[in-house]
Amino acid sequence: MAIITLTTDWNKSDYYVGTVKGKILSIDASIQIVDISHQVQPFNLMQAAFIVRNCCFNFPNGTIHLIAVNAALGPKHSLLVFEINKQIFIAPDNGIVGLLSGEKPDKIFKVKNNKNVTNFLSLDLFIDTAINIIKGIEYETFVDTITRFESQIPYRPVIEKNLINGSVIYVDSFSNAITNVSKETFEKVGQGKAFEIFIQSNHYKLDKINTTYSDSISGELLALFNSIGLLEIAINNGNAADLLNLAINSAIRIKFYDEKPVSKLTLTGG
Amino acid sequence: MAIITLTTDWNKSDYYVGTVKGKILSIDASIQIVDISHQVQPFNLMQAAFIVRNCCFNFPNGTIHLIAVNAALGPKHSLLVFEINKQIFIAPDNGIVGLLSGEKPDKIFKVKNNKNVTNFLSLDLFIDTAINIIKGIEYETFVDTITRFESQIPYRPVIEKNLINGSVIYVDSFSNAITNVSKETFEKVGQGKAFEIFIQSNHYKLDKINTTYSDSISGELLALFNSIGLLEIAINNGNAADLLNLAINSAIRIKFYDEKPVSKLTLTGG
Amino acid sequence: MAIITLTTDWNKSDYYVGTVKGKILSIDASIQIVDISHQVQPFNLMQAAFIVRNCCFNFPNGTIHLIAVNAALGPKHSLLVFEINKQIFIAPDNGIVGLLSGEKPDKIFKVKNNKNVTNFLSLDLFIDTAINIIKGIEYETFVDTITRFESQIPYRPVIEKNLINGSVIYVDSFSNAITNVSKETFEKVGQGKAFEIFIQSNHYKLDKINTTYSDSISGELLALFNSIGLLEIAINNGNAADLLNLAINSAIRIKFYDEKPVSKLTLTGG
Repeated sequence: MAIITLTTDWNKSDYYVGTVKGKILSIDASIQIVDISHQVQPFNLMQAAFIVRNCCFNFPNGTIHLIAVNAALGPKHSLLVFEINKQIFIAPDNGIVGLLSGEKPDKIFKVKNNKNVTNFLSLDLFIDTAINIIKGIEYETFVDTITRFESQIPYRPVIEKNLINGSVIYVDSFSNAITNVSKETFEKVGQGKAFEIFIQSNHYKLDKINTTYSDSISGELLALFNSIGLLEIAINNGNAADLLNLAINSAIRIKFYDEKPVSKLTLTGG
Repeated sequence: MAIITLTTDWNKSDYYVGTVKGKILSIDASIQIVDISHQVQPFNLMQAAFIVRNCCFNFPNGTIHLIAVNAALGPKHSLLVFEINKQIFIAPDNGIVGLLSGEKPDKIFKVKNNKNVTNFLSLDLFIDTAINIIKGIEYETFVDTITRFESQIPYRPVIEKNLINGSVIYVDSFSNAITNVSKETFEKVGQGKAFEIFIQSNHYKLDKINTTYSDSISGELLALFNSIGLLEIAINNGNAADLLNLAINSAIRIKFYDEKPVSKLTLTGG
Repeated sequence: MAIITLTTDWNKSDYYVGTVKGKILSIDASIQIVDISHQVQPFNLMQAAFIVRNCCFNFPNGTIHLIAVNAALGPKHSLLVFEINKQIFIAPDNGIVGLLSGEKPDKIFKVKNNKNVTNFLSLDLFIDTAINIIKGIEYETFVDTITRFESQIPYRPVIEKNLINGSVIYVDSFSNAITNVSKETFEKVGQGKAFEIFIQSNHYKLDKINTTYSDSISGELLALFNSIGLLEIAINNGNAADLLNLAINSAIRIKFYDEKPVSKLTLTGG
């Protein structure tokens, strides 16, 4: 049974979601259509890529992921079909490829469009492409091979000796701030040394990393590596991003110390 | 496989959605239940009709569309079953029929209700009616033929020689303002003449219509005919309705000129 | 065909929903995954329990209800599997059992967790447990029998002679305030006597109960017993909770009179 997921910035109050679902179910009423999110902020590619990247590989091979964010097509923006680890993506040529794949996807094509593309073709082109794939029609008949495409690059932390300059890349439903500092990077740079995490300023800092939210008291600021291996700033039962005024791109700086910082030694009696 | 769509003003945080889904899946766990929107503004029939009208005809024939907006039943409001172009609708007798069909639907019935209608029967009556249709039970056993029903009429633009007085009928997720001026009406009244579109006042005006969002620079006010053939006021990558303070019923006036207006000739040197 | 429902405080903009759906559909692409709500307020167990309790028993026997609200697991919070009236629930040991069942569920188990529980195991443990149940694996292999678990008790009204001290337990999408005063309690205490319902203060009061929303004029304050048999304070076509500043725990007091209260007699001339 075919599975198609939808990630859009349409919100739920428009008729686009119903149009896509109606046309797809007209092909085969048993197709599984999975809403991943229709609440991506308008035009926010970073958010869309973060959501899709962190859940798409849990779907069965061959699942089609339709990503309609910043999706007004036109002469400048073609529609792409690409594959990463046997997952199939349909998305505009707006830079999201790089945000999803890190580098080059395994396969990438541009959808043929013989009609004069006006904005109202945009949604139809998405749907027709999905239907062609579901029906198992040969790629060659509806796409062209391409070698050039737009590609945004995910924000990566800047690394120096004993220093990681990272940033917040996502704020989740619980107002936890997820950073671009992976556990791997942290361990490689830190080599097990003592450290301090500075959150936005020198005012808020932490010198340890928890293993769970619940091993700190309620209301306490904490950092942990979350389910996708990224450093996350949270307040147990609280709203870290709201209280600390963290948003996408807020700076998170981690300093490692060959010896423990003096102030801490003094305060804690080491 | 039966398909049933849901369009409601229940929002997602109540138990009504779960109740409908649970009861329907108890009949047959393979039924496709499609959420079109649960975020219609409370009691907003215009919005509900706009959403459903613009996506329902993409579903397979025989799809059941349950529309529970302004749905408190009672002695004054019966529940209706009606058909338009082989799509089946279940909705209260609150005027939405006219908003969906323009005129008279192909078939229309009133659901029998032998019980004393208190508000808590309302949801059950919706569900029981859907289940009767899914099970293929003969209409006569649960509905009565009617000839009178409430019917609101969609706002249509007022037309004079060289003038269209239209209005905004919907604001979408991107803050684009969709008007009731169709491409057909525009071309019939305009006959290819020069024109100016006045948005709310004489302050904001446009004298051309784009074919895509992306053929204007970012931040520019523009007008285009959208995927459903209606004139739409937008700002490329911006929020037209917010910035121009447009809402449902805001006036959009289009003047056609036998000769181009003097001010434009002067300014553009055209 | 297996049915699994989801009730979470994840909202729709995160990747958790996609992760759960992807992993479950990887087992069997035909499983029905039903979104009940992803918009429970973060950590609000009362709201989650209210929603689930009032719709879950409409699902077919054997339906699995996954409730991930206040779901950060850890050494203190285990994951539970329990059954009430042949519905199966997966939820943390955070007190929601009592809110759902009133008392003890029919069966209750604690999920075995041989791995070191860090927060990122939390979601996996939920999903693995659901998959074990869907696959029909014997309970003994993945759960342990328990006799002690956390259990919050639903707020019940306090009853005296001729008096019910109730409170608001839920505010719905229409801003209606649902109280914990059941029709049964009302009739048992009231014995058909005249009464006054005091809403928050002595300022707003009602001396009758409607049978439907629509048997009062638009804008009028009213009380009725809703579809789940609880006293609800509403304004016909209005927003009762907003206008009267009602929220969860707002006091609703009902006084019964052996004779009609003097003030009313005077005013109405009754």
